[in-house]
Amino acid sequence: MAESLGNMKRTHMCGTLGPHHIDEEVTLMGWVQKRRDLGGLIFADLRDRAGIVQIVFDKDISEEAFAKAEKIRGEYVIAIRGVVKRRHAVNPNLPTGEIEVFASEMKILSEAQTPPIYIEDEDDVSENLRLKYRYLDLRKSRMQKNLMFRHKVAKVVRDFLDENGFIEVETPMLTKPTPEGARDYLVPSRVNPGKFYALPQSPQLFKQLLMVSGMDRYFQIVKCFRDEDLRADRQPEFTQIDIEMSFVDVEEVLAINEKLLQRIFKETMGIDIEIPLQRMSYREAMERYGSDKPDVRFGFELKCINDIAENCSFKVFADTVKNGGDVRGINVNGYGNRFSRKDIGKLEDYVKTYGAKGLAWIKVTEEGVNSPIGKFFHDAEMDKILQRFDGKPGDLLLFVADKPSVVLDALGHLRVEIAKQLGILNKDEYKLLWVTEFPLFEYDEEEGRYVAKHHPFTSPMEEDLELLETAPEQVRAKAYDIVLNGIELGGGSIRIHSTELQQRMFKALGFTTAQAWEKFGFLLEAFQYGTPPHGGIAYGLDRLVMLLTGNDSIREVIAFPKTQNASSPMTEDPSVVEERQLKELHIRVVLDQNQ
Amino acid sequence: MAESLGNMKRTHMCGTLGPHHIDEEVTLMGWVQKRRDLGGLIFADLRDRAGIVQIVFDKDISEEAFAKAEKIRGEYVIAIRGVVKRRHAVNPNLPTGEIEVFASEMKILSEAQTPPIYIEDEDDVSENLRLKYRYLDLRKSRMQKNLMFRHKVAKVVRDFLDENGFIEVETPMLTKPTPEGARDYLVPSRVNPGKFYALPQSPQLFKQLLMVSGMDRYFQIVKCFRDEDLRADRQPEFTQIDIEMSFVDVEEVLAINEKLLQRIFKETMGIDIEIPLQRMSYREAMERYGSDKPDVRFGFELKCINDIAENCSFKVFADTVKNGGDVRGINVNGYGNRFSRKDIGKLEDYVKTYGAKGLAWIKVTEEGVNSPIGKFFHDAEMDKILQRFDGKPGDLLLFVADKPSVVLDALGHLRVEIAKQLGILNKDEYKLLWVTEFPLFEYDEEEGRYVAKHHPFTSPMEEDLELLETAPEQVRAKAYDIVLNGIELGGGSIRIHSTELQQRMFKALGFTTAQAWEKFGFLLEAFQYGTPPHGGIAYGLDRLVMLLTGNDSIREVIAFPKTQNASSPMTEDPSVVEERQLKELHIRVVLDQNQ
Repeated sequence: MAESLGNMKRTHMCGTLGPHHIDEEVTLMGWVQKRRDLGGLIFADLRDRAGIVQIVFDKDISEEAFAKAEKIRGEYVIAIRGVVKRRHAVNPNLPTGEIEVFASEMKILSEAQTPPIYIEDEDDVSENLRLKYRYLDLRKSRMQKNLMFRHKVAKVVRDFLDENGFIEVETPMLTKPTPEGARDYLVPSRVNPGKFYALPQSPQLFKQLLMVSGMDRYFQIVKCFRDEDLRADRQPEFTQIDIEMSFVDVEEVLAINEKLLQRIFKETMGIDIEIPLQRMSYREAMERYGSDKPDVRFGFELKCINDIAENCSFKVFADTVKNGGDVRGINVNGYGNRFSRKDIGKLEDYVKTYGAKGLAWIKVTEEGVNSPIGKFFHDAEMDKILQRFDGKPGDLLLFVADKPSVVLDALGHLRVEIAKQLGILNKDEYKLLWVTEFPLFEYDEEEGRYVAKHHPFTSPMEEDLELLETAPEQVRAKAYDIVLNGIELGGGSIRIHSTELQQRMFKALGFTTAQAWEKFGFLLEAFQYGTPPHGGIAYGLDRLVMLLTGNDSIREVIAFPKTQNASSPMTEDPSVVEERQLKELHIRVVLDQNQ
Repeated sequence: MAESLGNMKRTHMCGTLGPHHIDEEVTLMGWVQKRRDLGGLIFADLRDRAGIVQIVFDKDISEEAFAKAEKIRGEYVIAIRGVVKRRHAVNPNLPTGEIEVFASEMKILSEAQTPPIYIEDEDDVSENLRLKYRYLDLRKSRMQKNLMFRHKVAKVVRDFLDENGFIEVETPMLTKPTPEGARDYLVPSRVNPGKFYALPQSPQLFKQLLMVSGMDRYFQIVKCFRDEDLRADRQPEFTQIDIEMSFVDVEEVLAINEKLLQRIFKETMGIDIEIPLQRMSYREAMERYGSDKPDVRFGFELKCINDIAENCSFKVFADTVKNGGDVRGINVNGYGNRFSRKDIGKLEDYVKTYGAKGLAWIKVTEEGVNSPIGKFFHDAEMDKILQRFDGKPGDLLLFVADKPSVVLDALGHLRVEIAKQLGILNKDEYKLLWVTEFPLFEYDEEEGRYVAKHHPFTSPMEEDLELLETAPEQVRAKAYDIVLNGIELGGGSIRIHSTELQQRMFKALGFTTAQAWEKFGFLLEAFQYGTPPHGGIAYGLDRLVMLLTGNDSIREVIAFPKTQNASSPMTEDPSVVEERQLKELHIRVVLDQNQ
């Protein structure tokens, strides 16, 4: 049965003890990691957030403590008082391995049943079981470190932004449904029958309103919500580092964010990041890497061979170019020998998942080229190809011919897939990159019109203003993403602050003035009363922490995440509620859609 | 039409300029507070978050800037470049009043329509209009200061807790409905038809689970939600500073929180708070102040005169005591002359709103007592009464006779009401007080059983454990509230960490084991695997900031609050949503409850 603390007060954390505490009396509290009985002594590993230390119970020191120690098992919570001694057999695997604590007093604060999962980092149980017993899963040192790291990142961000004049302002969680956005989570209103709040997909409108209100520099670390189907890096609720500033253009936003990133890397990882960071236009990123979030830790860059393919006798290539398509390739340079015909077949299957119809290949060997399509090219053509890719013996060239978008997408993914297979992606290398000058619009086939790629308040680049009506697809936006090792960490833009330009933008999007006001009325109204030039950025905190801690899923860095079907096996939510509650909210459940 | 920033970069904030900038060229950006034309010059007050500075446009310096300046009106957003000069006519009302800036260049960044509310602190418009144009309301210096102060408080809290080993952990916003709590906001689940999440009323269960998981010291500044009817200090969503720690008893929790409060007052107000803070048991607070959150900035303490009343010839008093009631009074000492019979009549009306049937009074004058009930008391009895209250000429004694709870409540409110009427409440005096040893239970007439006053996991005091089954109403809890000037800032408790004690607690609450598991299953299960002694506290951040900034409503310290009917006149939420959205969520609106 559980004892109370009484007058015992903890003096140290278990994991912090070392040789400099020898002969000191300490009071420790924590969980029993394991117990061993040996030669009339009882040894217990005592664990807290800081680490593990060995406790020794010796009948000659305290019969009472020894007697209690005979009862303890794994995960019992105990408090001990005792003296730190040098350990005879040093345990080099334990930071506290040079010492142990001889207990003169002990209390069993809580007994424990055998836990359903082991409290060990490498416990190999299903994620569902881990989430059901998350409070045990979080006892693992690895998980505790993840959460402490996350705390640290948030702290560094807040410190930096505070020092730079940013004010954290809380924006509402109960707000208005988002026009033109993802699917909202809705909250029925009790006092406004038939009406609903939405949980915010982002504080975008509010942060712009705060700029209109003269707050000048705003930030918030804030929960956002999207009711989308889940993947490894998606959760119904996620946390955003949201930033907005007034009287700035792209340069100022990028500059302050580079300093922020530099600080995060320095203070949480001890890594020096050189700034200014690399920058690349969207167009260059697509051309060279087939991706708007390229992983630039490795090469295998895309190159176009339309000029060569156009007139070659390989019909697939030639026809593609003639029909407005592209032929592009990458050089897996130096790794040609690592890919058999069968391996290349698998790579072909891989690019097909991105819509490519096939994957042509050329191996460069000391004896010349080896390729099923080799016969279609004269020597001069082949030389030109090799020259373009700087092809040398040991290289493997891979080609896709298709619509430009398919070619870029397929090869963009292929180069990453190959790097993964080759194991050349260094987890300890952090390549940060700004991708800038995104297109302002993208064409929505379904809606049959241009839609805003970022959002309808994103400012076009001044250089492209004249194209807004004549060639909207060519207009570049003052929008930017920050990319880390091929993953988008965040993105933002300079917003439109001119009513006149905003009108032109809506027109380009195919909205009448009335439609625009219906969708964005209160923001447009606000903009009429004096709006400063402003812009900002938002980072995904979960993703950032996931990457910095070397995890593969954001669920590893969220204390209580949801499963893939947006539920919690621990608390069993969502759950059925009482009819009375629904009545108060003026709603009824309708399971059969046809009712 | 709006100009873009071009190559202009802000060098200073308007409100920060002073004589040490004289002859410096500066670039400023902000809103035009007002414009005056005088003797061929145009003067504009330019405003940003930091304050206001006077800009002078002189045709001789720049004709172009002067021409543009002729167009500007209130709330236009402009950028100017110019040189700081000493002002001939110093404006002592303006921190920047010793200088002005002569503009050599200017851009109109945004035009502005005449705003529907004035951007002045004392603008006397309806709150509804203020909330509809909140982005303009927030331009007021007073409101900007409120939000900046709030940011500062949150920052100080985070810094302090971080330094003291607390980890900020985010707990879910989409969670399980709260058993035994207030009304939840519900969120229908799309992927789990017929099921609902609830928005958290507090992270209580999660923070306890984090203690079970060994996180040791947790905090979070977090949004909480209660679907209750609103008052000046209630909002559908509010922000809590939530703290929990392991291996502690009451003393440790109070001690660290006193240091936290000390730091907040020091760093945000420049005020030194002496610690340890005053402490008072619930019982003493009720006896002396008729309140569990007494304002101890002034006296007028309650005293019981049951012993005198019991045998007096004033039947109302005597009968009350005989029937188990109380007769208590306060001495409005020194202010007797301020209350006429008519005034006292109004005070009587006031106590009636708290259920009292009347208010007896005795004025002490140089000539003796003056009281409608004076004749019912012998001289010896009257002397005893005066002695008890230390009644001196100029004093006014006020009495209520009724059920004990009514007497305490009525007099508790009366003493505060009187202090308000007398204007003796010093807004600049901050009296912090711990109220401790709350009753563990209170009797719920409706349910016909004892319910937990705090929550069912609150630990009883060890001294009272034996009363748990025999006299539950006498059991005191390890619960505490922190009170500032009569307002509860926060509260918390040490939690039960023993399964055995938890069973006894549930039994006392009238739950069978099965019922307890149905309500709190996952927490009880968690407690079986080794639970440290733990406890914590939660503060209302909105209320704290409201009090420290001297505001009367939390809406003044929330950027985008809701109105009394939980709606936003600005964004017009809650709002009607599309049928398609409801269908996806498997719900239907039912406006007629009888359908």
